[in-house]
Amino acid sequence: MNYSLIRNILGKIILLLAIFMILPIFIAIYYNEPTINIISFLIPGLSLGLIGFLMSVFKAKDTKILAREGFVIVGLSWILMSIFGCIPFIVSKEIPNFFDAFFEITSGFTTTGSTILSSEAIDSMSHSMLFWRSFSHWIGGMGILVFILAFIPESKDGTTVHILRAESTGPSVGKLVSKMQVTTRILYLIYMGLSIVMFITLLILPDEKMGVFDSLITTFGTAGTGGFSNHGLSIGFYSSAVQYTVGIFMVLFGVNFTFYYLLLTGHLKEAFKNEEVIWYFGFVILFTIVIFVNILNVYSTTEEAFRHAFFQTASIISTTGFSTTNYGVWPALSLSSIMFLTLVGSCAGSTAGGIKVSRFAIISKQTFFDIEKMTSPRKIRKLRMNRKVVDDNIISSVKTYLLTYAIIFVTSTILISIYNPSMENLDPLTSFSSSLTCLGNVGPGLGIVGPVGNFSGYSYFSKMVLSIEMMMGRLELFPILILFNPQTWKKRI
Amino acid sequence: MNYSLIRNILGKIILLLAIFMILPIFIAIYYNEPTINIISFLIPGLSLGLIGFLMSVFKAKDTKILAREGFVIVGLSWILMSIFGCIPFIVSKEIPNFFDAFFEITSGFTTTGSTILSSEAIDSMSHSMLFWRSFSHWIGGMGILVFILAFIPESKDGTTVHILRAESTGPSVGKLVSKMQVTTRILYLIYMGLSIVMFITLLILPDEKMGVFDSLITTFGTAGTGGFSNHGLSIGFYSSAVQYTVGIFMVLFGVNFTFYYLLLTGHLKEAFKNEEVIWYFGFVILFTIVIFVNILNVYSTTEEAFRHAFFQTASIISTTGFSTTNYGVWPALSLSSIMFLTLVGSCAGSTAGGIKVSRFAIISKQTFFDIEKMTSPRKIRKLRMNRKVVDDNIISSVKTYLLTYAIIFVTSTILISIYNPSMENLDPLTSFSSSLTCLGNVGPGLGIVGPVGNFSGYSYFSKMVLSIEMMMGRLELFPILILFNPQTWKKRI
Repeated sequence: MNYSLIRNILGKIILLLAIFMILPIFIAIYYNEPTINIISFLIPGLSLGLIGFLMSVFKAKDTKILAREGFVIVGLSWILMSIFGCIPFIVSKEIPNFFDAFFEITSGFTTTGSTILSSEAIDSMSHSMLFWRSFSHWIGGMGILVFILAFIPESKDGTTVHILRAESTGPSVGKLVSKMQVTTRILYLIYMGLSIVMFITLLILPDEKMGVFDSLITTFGTAGTGGFSNHGLSIGFYSSAVQYTVGIFMVLFGVNFTFYYLLLTGHLKEAFKNEEVIWYFGFVILFTIVIFVNILNVYSTTEEAFRHAFFQTASIISTTGFSTTNYGVWPALSLSSIMFLTLVGSCAGSTAGGIKVSRFAIISKQTFFDIEKMTSPRKIRKLRMNRKVVDDNIISSVKTYLLTYAIIFVTSTILISIYNPSMENLDPLTSFSSSLTCLGNVGPGLGIVGPVGNFSGYSYFSKMVLSIEMMMGRLELFPILILFNPQTWKKRI
Repeated sequence: MNYSLIRNILGKIILLLAIFMILPIFIAIYYNEPTINIISFLIPGLSLGLIGFLMSVFKAKDTKILAREGFVIVGLSWILMSIFGCIPFIVSKEIPNFFDAFFEITSGFTTTGSTILSSEAIDSMSHSMLFWRSFSHWIGGMGILVFILAFIPESKDGTTVHILRAESTGPSVGKLVSKMQVTTRILYLIYMGLSIVMFITLLILPDEKMGVFDSLITTFGTAGTGGFSNHGLSIGFYSSAVQYTVGIFMVLFGVNFTFYYLLLTGHLKEAFKNEEVIWYFGFVILFTIVIFVNILNVYSTTEEAFRHAFFQTASIISTTGFSTTNYGVWPALSLSSIMFLTLVGSCAGSTAGGIKVSRFAIISKQTFFDIEKMTSPRKIRKLRMNRKVVDDNIISSVKTYLLTYAIIFVTSTILISIYNPSMENLDPLTSFSSSLTCLGNVGPGLGIVGPVGNFSGYSYFSKMVLSIEMMMGRLELFPILILFNPQTWKKRI
């Protein structure tokens, strides 16, 4: 293990987190909040700044790392971010308990959007804390390490590729341009650009409830595909126009960012050849229609049924988790569809969670071929995505990924059912959907943790399990799993 | 396709089914049932006998088949068995509707045990129909084709292996002795022997409610790991002694039959080296304890809690589906455990369903290795089961199997949610567990289809989907899947 490099990079992460903590102080001052709120960010901010500086000021002798170090760096970074990031909630006493605060900020960074706060608690929270809670979505969306790699000059490609692989979503990191750092910078700029467009669009919309602060919070929640809102009613608080707009942007942030890069550089043909994006839009359209027809007689107007159907489809497939209505009461077909979308999630290379559309597409095709192979053993068909043959290694790693995902999901469902003294009526639908929604970084589940409920009833132990699931989901399992393997901590072989 | 051989074998199946239909006639006569009950078996029995005879009397010119034909024969046989097997229910008007009767007999043959009958309907059913319903479990347990291959002299090993592979459970068919026919005969004799032991044990037990008829029905349900009972209360109808006995036999019928063969032939050491059996007993003990502790304060005595915990664990892991209590009201941990056991099921080479313990063991180990490989790419570890290295092809086929299983499960869950006009309050837990329990051949699910509920509320379409799932589960997916592939029906390549 290259410990000096790990120290150096973790230092940078902590330093960056400290810098981010300055922003909510301005919000606290602007809204004339009590001094304790300013202190809640100032003291940890300064302390972390000092720690981060000391850790990162001494350069690592050797900047070469292996895949293993890449995973470890990413895994540890995200754990540290959550441990330090929840301090303001605790100090301000807005979320006084460590486990609750840790769950909430992990849910923020991992862009899950599951909350331990009740609707009333959200409505009475201070602006600075709401800002920090939602800002964590925006930071976590593209990944804090990706940010460092993109904008800190000394990074080398050899280091970058391993870290990027560990923090990015999807089965393989596409290389847009040959230099890794340039790639990540472009992706980050697309992310920022799209966020700004959304922020301005929300401001322009004729909804007086959607002021600057609300636009900012909603943009953070959408861009990171997180789902924290500053209102107990989530996006149901705003006008239909806002709901449609947020719906559209949720869909957009679930698209593989490479698609936008290709669009921007005029490679239209290549962009629209991307099969994952086609499947993704296909799912959005299909499930909007299915749910729309299914809930037609739940709502008084066709428009309302359509709006909720589209919004919820967009919200779940993009793994954002905003809501406009209590869809927990919808009929079974809609709820099965929502669970299915929770499982699938969005495109690789987006800010979203789930197993990713490309993995779903690969495994569906491959399974079809495997069945065919049993019929005619001599027939060999090669799996293609985007008209290119997919390497057997990728197919095999996709299989491993999905099975690991299933094992984690099943294990966690059992673990979080073990002990929850203040949740007497925990039903299997709640535990099952809690586990699936946290692992898929969606946010709300069904039952007690449905769109109008929250996760507060779970025990500390269950909250820790769910927090770890959220991190596993965001980092695509292995960077967190690897930390539990004693082998990882042995000397370099 | 070797159509003449397919015709010949299907003819034998139909002939055998016709012979089996004679048995319930004796029951009807013994219990002085109305003439219609005798006719319900006699007419279809005679007709099928004639059809079967005509189909099988002309020998196939060529008895060589490929894997494809093996699958097709098995898939078609099971469909025909269900289509013809449900006729007595319809003629006697005890289950007048085709879709209901088809669901019920499919549930019987596939040893699932899901029913469309209410507790009251079961209690008022005639003896001959109850006999036929439960006898189907016993026939389906080992497989009707396995029976034919074992006891009809003209079968050749080349034909046998493909059919056996398609109808047997588990990732690979172990060869006990070199000649296939001898193997299947031994397995069938073990099955019969163990059934007789159970039947006698039940008769000896001091429970006056457990007479000859009840012992027979209970043995059929246990041996086939089916779960149909002749009482609405299932095994809860009988004394504790019966409940413990049935519990133990359910566990025994979930064991890989090769284990018994090794025991009987004195290969004790080899028998106890079988890892799958160790994992299986480990699960039985672990989940009995987990559920026991979890439900301690649901019941008034410790003994009662233990009894229900053991019985339900045994019933679900063996995919039988008998019940002694309404476990649908148990706390979340117990229900999650039950869902987990529904997924895993029993040993390969037993009469039970689920994904099988060996597949679970292989995939757990393999996933661990895969994670390890990401840490130290240069380290290569070979997966071992029973101290032997597992071939990469088997690992790969296990992965394919599990992913196909997951895809079928998810697809069916959505399909059965689409349209059920007489099931207004269909909740996701019900649809989810219906799909899982039918695919795993367990029987009861949770919610509306829980241990005190039934499947009658589903629409005809949903019942067909669930019936197909049961067949897929029993035949390990591919023999049924292959029938849907147009490629299958092309000429031999």
